[in-house]
Amino acid sequence: MRIHDYPGFPNPLRVRIALAEKGLSSEVEFVLVDLPAAEHKQPPFLAINPEGTVPVLELDDGTFISECTAITDYLDNLDGDPVLTGTTLKERAVIQMMQKRGERELLYAAGNYYHYGTPGAGPTVAAYKLPNWKGRTEWGALERDRAIAGMRYFDDVLSRQTYIAGDTFSMADITVYAGLYFADIGEIAIPDECESLKAWRTRISERPSVNNPA
Amino acid sequence: MRIHDYPGFPNPLRVRIALAEKGLSSEVEFVLVDLPAAEHKQPPFLAINPEGTVPVLELDDGTFISECTAITDYLDNLDGDPVLTGTTLKERAVIQMMQKRGERELLYAAGNYYHYGTPGAGPTVAAYKLPNWKGRTEWGALERDRAIAGMRYFDDVLSRQTYIAGDTFSMADITVYAGLYFADIGEIAIPDECESLKAWRTRISERPSVNNPA
Repeated sequence: MRIHDYPGFPNPLRVRIALAEKGLSSEVEFVLVDLPAAEHKQPPFLAINPEGTVPVLELDDGTFISECTAITDYLDNLDGDPVLTGTTLKERAVIQMMQKRGERELLYAAGNYYHYGTPGAGPTVAAYKLPNWKGRTEWGALERDRAIAGMRYFDDVLSRQTYIAGDTFSMADITVYAGLYFADIGEIAIPDECESLKAWRTRISERPSVNNPA
Repeated sequence: MRIHDYPGFPNPLRVRIALAEKGLSSEVEFVLVDLPAAEHKQPPFLAINPEGTVPVLELDDGTFISECTAITDYLDNLDGDPVLTGTTLKERAVIQMMQKRGERELLYAAGNYYHYGTPGAGPTVAAYKLPNWKGRTEWGALERDRAIAGMRYFDDVLSRQTYIAGDTFSMADITVYAGLYFADIGEIAIPDECESLKAWRTRISERPSVNNPA
């Protein structure tokens, strides 16, 4: 298997933490995609992922899988012993639901703020984002507000349970962790009163997989 | 099981087609959420889905599952014989990936145009959307363009294979079908030259589950 990505970016981090959790880091060959040079927006990369995003998992038969949730579901179930995506149907459903909330209300919102409300990854990458319509900066700010609301929502969840999807660490934790990581890049601070979220983040950051992802 | 939704809207349709495909229509009790009156944005509904979206699946133990992809994965696997979400890990991954593309590049894009580029579902619902920032209409139009680009992408996919995720009908077809259904509501036409997409749509619309969803 090969992973096409760029280390240190939020979505690649989700897959790299999952690989470390599963002990699969050495099973994968990494292929660097030069994101700052917008390699992911050029035809050779678009041929493997038309959406122009990383990471992409390349299977040994040549199939390309994009989307973190699809990639990590695949990797977690490879050995028949899923530990990140649930074992019962209900667990699977709750983890999927909470990952989607983590994406929409935090990770994507923080990313939109980064790309539209700040200089983002610079002009080379910005040229491939939505054109400079007049509401661009204002929309970015609305997305920052959305990310902050998302932090308050997950803080509330974590005031009632240990992990994002219940009593067990899961992909939902990794997704929300990556969301906070993206918020850091965009300099969106966690509100002071979100004590449960901050305590959870400290606990998560102490996991070996998070400390030392693939 | 109970489904909280509003018939005739695109996301509820995804679950209702899946229920019909699985022969589960009579196993579910439907609870009407009055979307035109914005019931989904009021505290009683937000208590079951903080994102304020339908559909929501209520399990017999009182667990609420939102997000169509989580709901349909659950329903499809209930009998241990998934027919919509893949049987091998690779099939599952490809279907998940294509559903996400269908959402982002077509269904959500068409929905954003409907809500921000047109009068949408009217002022009662609009009050719960993002505030009337100055780029609102322009952003809606950009999302319409994105939906049209999505149609062209899926047309290209369907010029090479029978269904959205390969040789077999799957949730990815249902999601893209719902995306076109939302495009209809917003009066976004399929480009004339997208012959493969139009022929696929005709085939899909002839399925009993699509003709007569739950």
